[in-house]
Amino acid sequence: MTDSGLLGPVWAGTPIESVVGDEAWLRAMLDAEAALARAQARLGLIPGSASESITSAAASARLDLRELAVRSRSAANPVVALVPAFTEAVREIDPAAAEYVHRGSTSQDILDTACMLVAKRAFALIEDDLTAVAASLAALAESHRETVLAGRTLTQHAVPITFGLKAATWLQGVLDALARVRALGLPAELGGAAGTLSAYGAYAELDAGSPLPLGGAELIAPFAEETGLAEPVTCWHTARAPIADLGAVAQFVTGALGKLALDVQLSCRTEIGELAEPFATGRGASSAMPQKRNPVLATLILSAARQVPSHALVLAQSMLADDERPGGAWHAEWQSVREALRLTGGAAHTAAELCAGLVVHPERMAENLARTGGAIVAERLNVALAPVLGKAPAKKLLTDAAIEADSTGKPFAAVVAALPELADLLADGKLLDPREYVGASDALVDRVLARYRVQRP
Amino acid sequence: MTDSGLLGPVWAGTPIESVVGDEAWLRAMLDAEAALARAQARLGLIPGSASESITSAAASARLDLRELAVRSRSAANPVVALVPAFTEAVREIDPAAAEYVHRGSTSQDILDTACMLVAKRAFALIEDDLTAVAASLAALAESHRETVLAGRTLTQHAVPITFGLKAATWLQGVLDALARVRALGLPAELGGAAGTLSAYGAYAELDAGSPLPLGGAELIAPFAEETGLAEPVTCWHTARAPIADLGAVAQFVTGALGKLALDVQLSCRTEIGELAEPFATGRGASSAMPQKRNPVLATLILSAARQVPSHALVLAQSMLADDERPGGAWHAEWQSVREALRLTGGAAHTAAELCAGLVVHPERMAENLARTGGAIVAERLNVALAPVLGKAPAKKLLTDAAIEADSTGKPFAAVVAALPELADLLADGKLLDPREYVGASDALVDRVLARYRVQRP
Amino acid sequence: MTDSGLLGPVWAGTPIESVVGDEAWLRAMLDAEAALARAQARLGLIPGSASESITSAAASARLDLRELAVRSRSAANPVVALVPAFTEAVREIDPAAAEYVHRGSTSQDILDTACMLVAKRAFALIEDDLTAVAASLAALAESHRETVLAGRTLTQHAVPITFGLKAATWLQGVLDALARVRALGLPAELGGAAGTLSAYGAYAELDAGSPLPLGGAELIAPFAEETGLAEPVTCWHTARAPIADLGAVAQFVTGALGKLALDVQLSCRTEIGELAEPFATGRGASSAMPQKRNPVLATLILSAARQVPSHALVLAQSMLADDERPGGAWHAEWQSVREALRLTGGAAHTAAELCAGLVVHPERMAENLARTGGAIVAERLNVALAPVLGKAPAKKLLTDAAIEADSTGKPFAAVVAALPELADLLADGKLLDPREYVGASDALVDRVLARYRVQRP
Amino acid sequence: MTDSGLLGPVWAGTPIESVVGDEAWLRAMLDAEAALARAQARLGLIPGSASESITSAAASARLDLRELAVRSRSAANPVVALVPAFTEAVREIDPAAAEYVHRGSTSQDILDTACMLVAKRAFALIEDDLTAVAASLAALAESHRETVLAGRTLTQHAVPITFGLKAATWLQGVLDALARVRALGLPAELGGAAGTLSAYGAYAELDAGSPLPLGGAELIAPFAEETGLAEPVTCWHTARAPIADLGAVAQFVTGALGKLALDVQLSCRTEIGELAEPFATGRGASSAMPQKRNPVLATLILSAARQVPSHALVLAQSMLADDERPGGAWHAEWQSVREALRLTGGAAHTAAELCAGLVVHPERMAENLARTGGAIVAERLNVALAPVLGKAPAKKLLTDAAIEADSTGKPFAAVVAALPELADLLADGKLLDPREYVGASDALVDRVLARYRVQRP
Repeated sequence: MTDSGLLGPVWAGTPIESVVGDEAWLRAMLDAEAALARAQARLGLIPGSASESITSAAASARLDLRELAVRSRSAANPVVALVPAFTEAVREIDPAAAEYVHRGSTSQDILDTACMLVAKRAFALIEDDLTAVAASLAALAESHRETVLAGRTLTQHAVPITFGLKAATWLQGVLDALARVRALGLPAELGGAAGTLSAYGAYAELDAGSPLPLGGAELIAPFAEETGLAEPVTCWHTARAPIADLGAVAQFVTGALGKLALDVQLSCRTEIGELAEPFATGRGASSAMPQKRNPVLATLILSAARQVPSHALVLAQSMLADDERPGGAWHAEWQSVREALRLTGGAAHTAAELCAGLVVHPERMAENLARTGGAIVAERLNVALAPVLGKAPAKKLLTDAAIEADSTGKPFAAVVAALPELADLLADGKLLDPREYVGASDALVDRVLARYRVQRP
Repeated sequence: MTDSGLLGPVWAGTPIESVVGDEAWLRAMLDAEAALARAQARLGLIPGSASESITSAAASARLDLRELAVRSRSAANPVVALVPAFTEAVREIDPAAAEYVHRGSTSQDILDTACMLVAKRAFALIEDDLTAVAASLAALAESHRETVLAGRTLTQHAVPITFGLKAATWLQGVLDALARVRALGLPAELGGAAGTLSAYGAYAELDAGSPLPLGGAELIAPFAEETGLAEPVTCWHTARAPIADLGAVAQFVTGALGKLALDVQLSCRTEIGELAEPFATGRGASSAMPQKRNPVLATLILSAARQVPSHALVLAQSMLADDERPGGAWHAEWQSVREALRLTGGAAHTAAELCAGLVVHPERMAENLARTGGAIVAERLNVALAPVLGKAPAKKLLTDAAIEADSTGKPFAAVVAALPELADLLADGKLLDPREYVGASDALVDRVLARYRVQRP
Repeated sequence: MTDSGLLGPVWAGTPIESVVGDEAWLRAMLDAEAALARAQARLGLIPGSASESITSAAASARLDLRELAVRSRSAANPVVALVPAFTEAVREIDPAAAEYVHRGSTSQDILDTACMLVAKRAFALIEDDLTAVAASLAALAESHRETVLAGRTLTQHAVPITFGLKAATWLQGVLDALARVRALGLPAELGGAAGTLSAYGAYAELDAGSPLPLGGAELIAPFAEETGLAEPVTCWHTARAPIADLGAVAQFVTGALGKLALDVQLSCRTEIGELAEPFATGRGASSAMPQKRNPVLATLILSAARQVPSHALVLAQSMLADDERPGGAWHAEWQSVREALRLTGGAAHTAAELCAGLVVHPERMAENLARTGGAIVAERLNVALAPVLGKAPAKKLLTDAAIEADSTGKPFAAVVAALPELADLLADGKLLDPREYVGASDALVDRVLARYRVQRP
Repeated sequence: MTDSGLLGPVWAGTPIESVVGDEAWLRAMLDAEAALARAQARLGLIPGSASESITSAAASARLDLRELAVRSRSAANPVVALVPAFTEAVREIDPAAAEYVHRGSTSQDILDTACMLVAKRAFALIEDDLTAVAASLAALAESHRETVLAGRTLTQHAVPITFGLKAATWLQGVLDALARVRALGLPAELGGAAGTLSAYGAYAELDAGSPLPLGGAELIAPFAEETGLAEPVTCWHTARAPIADLGAVAQFVTGALGKLALDVQLSCRTEIGELAEPFATGRGASSAMPQKRNPVLATLILSAARQVPSHALVLAQSMLADDERPGGAWHAEWQSVREALRLTGGAAHTAAELCAGLVVHPERMAENLARTGGAIVAERLNVALAPVLGKAPAKKLLTDAAIEADSTGKPFAAVVAALPELADLLADGKLLDPREYVGASDALVDRVLARYRVQRP
């Protein structure tokens, strides 16, 4: 009855898996309970020994995940069942501390904080993998400044580009993604039943003998510190920026990686063959076709990139959270948060492997570049011919030449060589050489690499 | 590292869980392999004993799910790793049969067929639960024909309705959903590597000594029969109607149930209190607030209804499947299929429980109905007054009366009673009685119940 | 301030445009008002002359669209502003009839009915275009039974297929789409303020002198007949099956067409060149690159297929409609309905043009088929060799051969020809001939064409 | 055949409309062409007089929008048709300048830049409206620090809150949104046919007599400056961060506003009545029900909030852009960009109106707060009673009391007053007074207002 990865090859067996699995969420909920106890102890509200026992029990408790899951139906969230089970675990090691478990707290404080802890750990992995991807792409951009290939637009050969520029464009996307991952502010959550921290304040009054001047808001900063998360301005039970941002960043990451994967797939097509995935025995194999070496890494990345935006949408829609705590919008978030993180983590891990070993075939690039017999530099001829013939006649002449080349099968270069209007221009052969027409490729590689050097850790 | 239901309370511990879990998918893949062997045996292509051994091994094999999951990364799907493992399982009980495992087949035939088997089993549960929901709603519609409450539009009291009609409207949605579930044509998949059934045909030629007249298409009907699924017209590796339909129907089901759940939630609001969820000790409790009895069943249903459309979207987009088998679109389907089924099954199960025990409070309905002091029948007065004063003056008079009632706090009925223009009309008090103004409520209940009687099993 | 098509080239200037534009919606709203009057006249509730005048005014009224649009903000829908404007138009031609305009009605009855009328007219166009697409594809499937090309899976050459089968697979998707379009039950809407038809009943009582036995439900059938739409079982103000279905069918249509367009694009890639879009002067041109002939028809279709699922999602989510009429869910539908229809209609129109003139290049198919030097039939060798060497050794031998061919650049056929294990098998050359290995392609074409013959009009 | 706002009441007639309409897009494309000419003139590549004429023609040209729209089908984008039309317009005022129109450029440079210009203008309006919303909410938060109402969770009364805190929570969301709007980096686009700026460089070489050292990259900075947009690191034809971000921010804005609107709607429900929308004659009226005053502003905002995430999804998915310029992903963006901006702009404008005039009914808040007879402070009793009876017995006692209150209809306060265990605690009446139990409401208002003061312009 489990979800062990059989349907999620993009993440099955990768590091992200254990960081976002049910055990990790349970662990994070216990971390949140422990952080709360420590924060309360720091304010002198509960005994230090209780906070220590709670922290210790949180680290060592072995709770029955499945039982918690099944019992979560009763309250529509897992925390209500967790609290008594955890309280028992605390009681076993320190009966006096049991009283101080979850003191003044509410399910959503624990689960939202746990969610951010899980996200923080997941994004740390994702950031590492993106950093590795960026390094690989920067190396490709640098080393392939001179590798010329066909630039393609709307699926057709357009003008020449360098593979360095292509890698730099991928790098640009990955740097954009990295910047967004790093900018994510993952806050702790503390609001109590309806965002007023009322029971925290009431217990504080009970424990300290007098009301706290800020009614419980004093707890926010120490709690955030104890969790290692950012300090929130206010309770975000229904101001769901952290959740919406998480989704938006996850979809941005898989979007940037998916772009790269899509290009790799296209470049691996049998007829194109300009790139190949890193070789590994058995990888990309088919059960029936011995010749097959499918681009499976790119396929896995794309499988994630096609799913994550839908999860991000659920998370964005959760901003429409009614009242002080919603009946449904919040409950719809959890599985989408997990899936978004899991798919993104798997995609980033897979992309790191793909980019580290990407095989480049410059000879196939050259072969494909030559395939249109020179038509790939028709734009350049057009520029050169315009002042001679005028813009429109020049364009028409070359369009007709391209059509003739297409229909006769003659190389475009041969067709235009026969045109008297072009005789002078083509004299030195330079205008028809794709390698002489890569424009600002190199300068753009420089610009992206400069950004990379600033942004890398 | 599992997904045991902690984040999915809508389905955790419900019957759908075991039907769509990884073990069920693995079981369905083995069922597909066994059905293939039986179909081949029926055509005399492989020995009957081999087909029996394969069928037997499929039923009893204990494969390592986790190992298959992790190894699925290599081919980007679980079948390539499954085939050798299952072949070994067959070999253990019948070495001669091992040769006939997955004979001529391809990963997608097995996984698509397994997907449909899983879906069939899931929708059988869903259909049962929807049938139970429909029965409960039909009973409510029938028994509450006389229970009058405020009809609300754009959140405001509009005109009176009966609770029977409200239940009948929910029933209409559920019957619509049931019809779509029943109309789903879940086909087996058989296409071979690229949809030509080529290796099936090649093995058949080898096994039978001569080519099959239809090149392998002979296998389609018997294979479908052996799986218990519908016979496809042709291979649907990239004609994804079955997948797109599955998503569309799942989102329809949760949409219909979500409508009902949303109304239940609104009706349960503290200030409204017209409905309550069935009581169960501890259900809807809060860890901190003793008075709480949250409408958790409706909340669980809504949590599903908010997620399923996103999965349906992934499945609809998978129709954009490139070539003869896509590199990504297919791979993005599986987890969304499982989630869509799991959430829908959980929602249907929860809705059955909710509707079976829904508590109706006619006294609160009456109390709320009276709350506007009669303004809820202003439409009726408007109709009655129009021929007397003319349409526009009548409307203006009553609008002014409503504003006066609103601003002074006087009952609307009292305000209009003081208007000379209305003296005659209000003489017998009937025009201001909401119970006299439920329109065609009863006739509409009849229409929906007539449909129910036709459609129920 | 308009949306004249500048950003919607897939539909700009196509027939769908005028069918779903604001004027068409306004026209449909007036049609609904007229149908209501005729239905009421049929029941003897209003004078026949009034119904005639209203019908006549609905056909001829020239209302200020822009003013209605701007005034629609006040009630959050356009009908509240439309009613007085239309009433004036009726009054101008028949003062006595003005009283009978919109008699007992509510905004949502008019707008929902108008929506279904617009959808009906749009789907009629879509059905015609899909029928044309199907005819073109059926012809391609029939005429290219012998045209062999590389089947591709996960972007790599897999086994040979016929172009007839490829066209038949597209046809299967289009026939699936056609079936769903034809099955759409587009109902009229009649419910009154809160679904009880209360004011219809009240006016009827006033007009007829006694209450209608069914409280107004008598009007449903004649109203539906007068609109030409299906008769609803009950009011669907908040049972949104018609809207959810409309979205699901629209996304199905563009999914099926998008699949086709995606394949056309891939087949048009410069390196592949197996298909070309129908030639038209200037089409697919670039402003700067004279050689360009971009597959713009496929691009336009894909632009629609990428957008429609998002609109369908909005429509599916509108099923979560609160109370008797929702404050937001309904209002979010309209623009998505229009866009979904407009994009689908544009895509269908464009696909009809694309398929009618699709250029097939069998010589490029043959050239590409030969590109792997025979590896495309490795599956077949694998089948043949298995009984000789055993399954696993056979597979290994051929995998190694493929790797050798790949790394040395030698044709796969040459590599295997040198293998003693294969000498006998390859003797007659048949095993290596792709044209001898198209499996059940022909039989599958037959199956799809048989379906086509049944389903076509 | 237009889209004049009839189906978009949230934006019809609001300022956003003219900023994102087709004319505005056309204007922005011409602005991009003019900025390009000025940038080229600044580098000495084209005559200053030509740049002036082009700028002047761009400002004054009256092109036929509809013709451009229809002709855009031919190239799948409007720029290819625009260039000759605009060139003619330039020629009319300065024949010599015509040669310099769109010099070296490509459709996507112009359209992407125009898209960012439109977005910049739209977000300026949105920022203004959000700023106004924030100011209104800050004033509400400040002035309602003492207004106590029921905090509601999962639709049920939970614990008391202040309306100041509720407004502050809305403000928090709006400030989050404002921050994201302000952080948007909307860059100019300059890449030429395939991102190498090749034709810009070629023309520069032609015009200047020698190649530019950076091959055309010199143009990026001056072009960005002339447009007033941010300078991009590199060409983003297929690195779609600006588009994905635009969608994410738009959905964030409508999410934050939608949260507020949802709460307003709930608070306006007839039974709750704690808030009302600002009064305006005729607003919120029904055609049939004189008493109606629907919360239409909130409805309009919600209609937008339900649509924008779907458009954001299309834009996020456009990150999967193939090759150097995609055939479909780009083309799917435009209408979604416009709709996202239009709906967001309309929602922000509507929210500004709503918040500026929001009517607060403290007396209804007090009335509702009292409705549970004191159960709303059961949490507080629970805290107080725990040390007396122990945590679990205390909770049980109070839960039983709440059930008794519920089933008997007695006020909760009366039930607990009768419990001997509570006699001491309730002696001074303070524990049962909701106004004494608003926790940290005031401190949290302070925290949000402090942020507001930092963040406001």
